[in-house]
Amino acid sequence: MADPAGHPEPEEIEIGAVLHALADANRRKVVTDLWNAPVGEERTCQSFALPVSKSTLTHHFKILRESGLVWSIDKGNRNDVSLRREDLEARFPGLLKAVVSGSLHPAA
Amino acid sequence: MADPAGHPEPEEIEIGAVLHALADANRRKVVTDLWNAPVGEERTCQSFALPVSKSTLTHHFKILRESGLVWSIDKGNRNDVSLRREDLEARFPGLLKAVVSGSLHPAA
Repeated sequence: MADPAGHPEPEEIEIGAVLHALADANRRKVVTDLWNAPVGEERTCQSFALPVSKSTLTHHFKILRESGLVWSIDKGNRNDVSLRREDLEARFPGLLKAVVSGSLHPAA
Repeated sequence: MADPAGHPEPEEIEIGAVLHALADANRRKVVTDLWNAPVGEERTCQSFALPVSKSTLTHHFKILRESGLVWSIDKGNRNDVSLRREDLEARFPGLLKAVVSGSLHPAA
């Protein structure tokens, strides 16, 4: 069962929800940036500089959290995020790497 | 440029559109079935036995075709489909395999 913050357990992470989350370019940028960062790095939501309003930013991070892609970490006055790299790699081996690599070359 | 049937060129296939197409369980079943079939196999749209109306079926195959996941093959009285396996593997190595493998174990 998802915890109160909406994080699914590793075995509850669903491929459809993960693919839906990754289909959006802004959310894919968050995941790509976290993938390319040192393992376990925590970032503020603002640090990704997504070109969206604050409410849309909140929405994107909710989708990322509830799909199981990121941990949301309560810092009191803000929520930081980190990638659930091990959980995702265990459940869908190779998926994140393929998506991150695939995002490197935009459509012609 | 996409051809008149809506198939993008290989270099036009966009990761966001592919992930959006794969996020749906019915469309993922089509791709999974084609992935597991002999290379180049052509199937009728009805053969996947998706539990949807005819108009929804048409919609799903339009999304699959326009994202670049399948070829739609004009057979006169119907359109068959085949997987664009080589185009996808060249553009997004490992992606389809990871998605198909990830679809094997549903969420707990």
